[in-house]
Amino acid sequence: MQSEFEFINRLKINSQKIRRTRARVGIGDDCAVLPKNSRNDLVITTDLLVEDVDFKLDWSKPEFIGHKALAVSLSDVAAMGATPVWSMVSIGIPEHVWQTDFVEKFYDGYLRLASKFDVELVGGDVSKAPDKIVIDSIVAGEVRRGKAILRSTAQVGDLIFVSGELGGAAGGLKLLQNGTRYNSDEKIWRKHLLLRQLQPFPQVSSGEFLRDKKLATSMIDLSDGLSSDLAHVCSASKVGAQIFAAKIPFDIKLKPIAKTFEEKIDLALNGGEDFELLFTVNPKKYFRYKNEFKNRRFFQIGKITANVGIVELIEGEKIQILEPKGFRHF
Amino acid sequence: MQSEFEFINRLKINSQKIRRTRARVGIGDDCAVLPKNSRNDLVITTDLLVEDVDFKLDWSKPEFIGHKALAVSLSDVAAMGATPVWSMVSIGIPEHVWQTDFVEKFYDGYLRLASKFDVELVGGDVSKAPDKIVIDSIVAGEVRRGKAILRSTAQVGDLIFVSGELGGAAGGLKLLQNGTRYNSDEKIWRKHLLLRQLQPFPQVSSGEFLRDKKLATSMIDLSDGLSSDLAHVCSASKVGAQIFAAKIPFDIKLKPIAKTFEEKIDLALNGGEDFELLFTVNPKKYFRYKNEFKNRRFFQIGKITANVGIVELIEGEKIQILEPKGFRHF
Repeated sequence: MQSEFEFINRLKINSQKIRRTRARVGIGDDCAVLPKNSRNDLVITTDLLVEDVDFKLDWSKPEFIGHKALAVSLSDVAAMGATPVWSMVSIGIPEHVWQTDFVEKFYDGYLRLASKFDVELVGGDVSKAPDKIVIDSIVAGEVRRGKAILRSTAQVGDLIFVSGELGGAAGGLKLLQNGTRYNSDEKIWRKHLLLRQLQPFPQVSSGEFLRDKKLATSMIDLSDGLSSDLAHVCSASKVGAQIFAAKIPFDIKLKPIAKTFEEKIDLALNGGEDFELLFTVNPKKYFRYKNEFKNRRFFQIGKITANVGIVELIEGEKIQILEPKGFRHF
Repeated sequence: MQSEFEFINRLKINSQKIRRTRARVGIGDDCAVLPKNSRNDLVITTDLLVEDVDFKLDWSKPEFIGHKALAVSLSDVAAMGATPVWSMVSIGIPEHVWQTDFVEKFYDGYLRLASKFDVELVGGDVSKAPDKIVIDSIVAGEVRRGKAILRSTAQVGDLIFVSGELGGAAGGLKLLQNGTRYNSDEKIWRKHLLLRQLQPFPQVSSGEFLRDKKLATSMIDLSDGLSSDLAHVCSASKVGAQIFAAKIPFDIKLKPIAKTFEEKIDLALNGGEDFELLFTVNPKKYFRYKNEFKNRRFFQIGKITANVGIVELIEGEKIQILEPKGFRHF
């Protein structure tokens, strides 16, 4: 059976058969990139969230779900180095949910995050759904013409960075699976991990910084998980990568639930949903911005190699091939 | 309980509280309208289709579902007088459907229609869904700056037109409900009605004609049904309308399943999904284009009045208030 990634690749080829490409970047990056005017390009993304696959009512709150629906798409826009501008949201609601305050509170959470980034909700659709809530989140952003940061342009020798600590969202998921629920009286470390999972914050300003300073040679957001998302970069850029296990910045609040190094590294590599940025930088450029990177808590975790399609995880003397074990639907 | 239309109205107000409007037209028309460049505006729409609410696998074919998913959004773009340019589609698929050729054939139908209108599929999302297929269809179009045709600009005294015959899609739905299924050996009238329902054709070229000739003072597509969609125009334009029952162009193939005038008029007024255009024209302009309207089979069905919010149905001597009885989710 084909994976969703194989399917998307074939779809890309089929859709290109039909017409000459109008998009600068079509299917296969975090966002499509389309010419807007003489100055700017439009980037646009859509993310489908389905109840009991991407969120559970019992695990989250309607405000969190509204926040996260927008956040995941803002994160895609951030990963292009673009500034989000407007959004749409389509929502399918079962009758029994319509009768509650879910939709009200969903939009409260959604619009609160939208206002933080000055994103205007310009449209959407409301539909009935048979028994599960479905949400499609669409966000458009802008970036100077030709300056969107792609996943396909990493260069051999580039350093690999992440924009923040990893594994927190997966830790939160683990807590939820074990029966912990978010409430404001909860212990701080638990609240932290739960909010990393339930209310992720998109790294828009980091993306804008990297764009403005022309620092990132390639970029993707960490939605599926580092092992999978780095594999996407390597495959799109036709390069390989080495990751140094000791350099992976674990979320410090993981300690109580991930005792061993192996447990922590599994959450950080394969957990997904941290919605940090993964990006590559030419080493010469990095040295000029070393202090700034430190202040922003960007972490270097490895480098790009010529070993096409191979991601190596280096742990002391041990080198192992890192298989993409992040989230996949199929 | 609030209807979806009331909810959308409140959402419009809430989203406007948050920021000054960047969109020329935001929530509440067929498409949002956003400034693109010095020459053109971008119009964009999203339509959510949910299995067993908007389509049934047993009633349709994957190719038809792909076609219709795109067609409903193309119809929204057509209703703005815009030319469709690019699209995205997000699809949530249950595991057992992923294992069939549904997705292949869905995109066959989708891309076949896309190529007819030279629309480029630039992105999307593939997700797992628990048990029902969900599809979100997003289409963007272009129109000269400030020239999008809105539903809020009908003028008292304008004539009301539809771009084609009505009730066919509702007739097709009736056949499906009674157990008829589409197959190529079926009688022609049945095939015609089933295809009106299962494979609607968006009236893009009619929309473009009306835009190019500056003929329509307002426009909407007939998705919910004439009685509801005309009420949307009246409410948005703060006008009323009179419809002449005798002038409503019934789909001629309805005869075998709608014997009486009352049955036919119910399908035409309240059935929905014909995806024809409903538009208003200044009478002076109409007289200059009378022949062209005839050739294009545009039908005049009534006129706009100052009777704000009231739609009257005139049948001989009888005048009745027409309540919006078209499709609504809630």
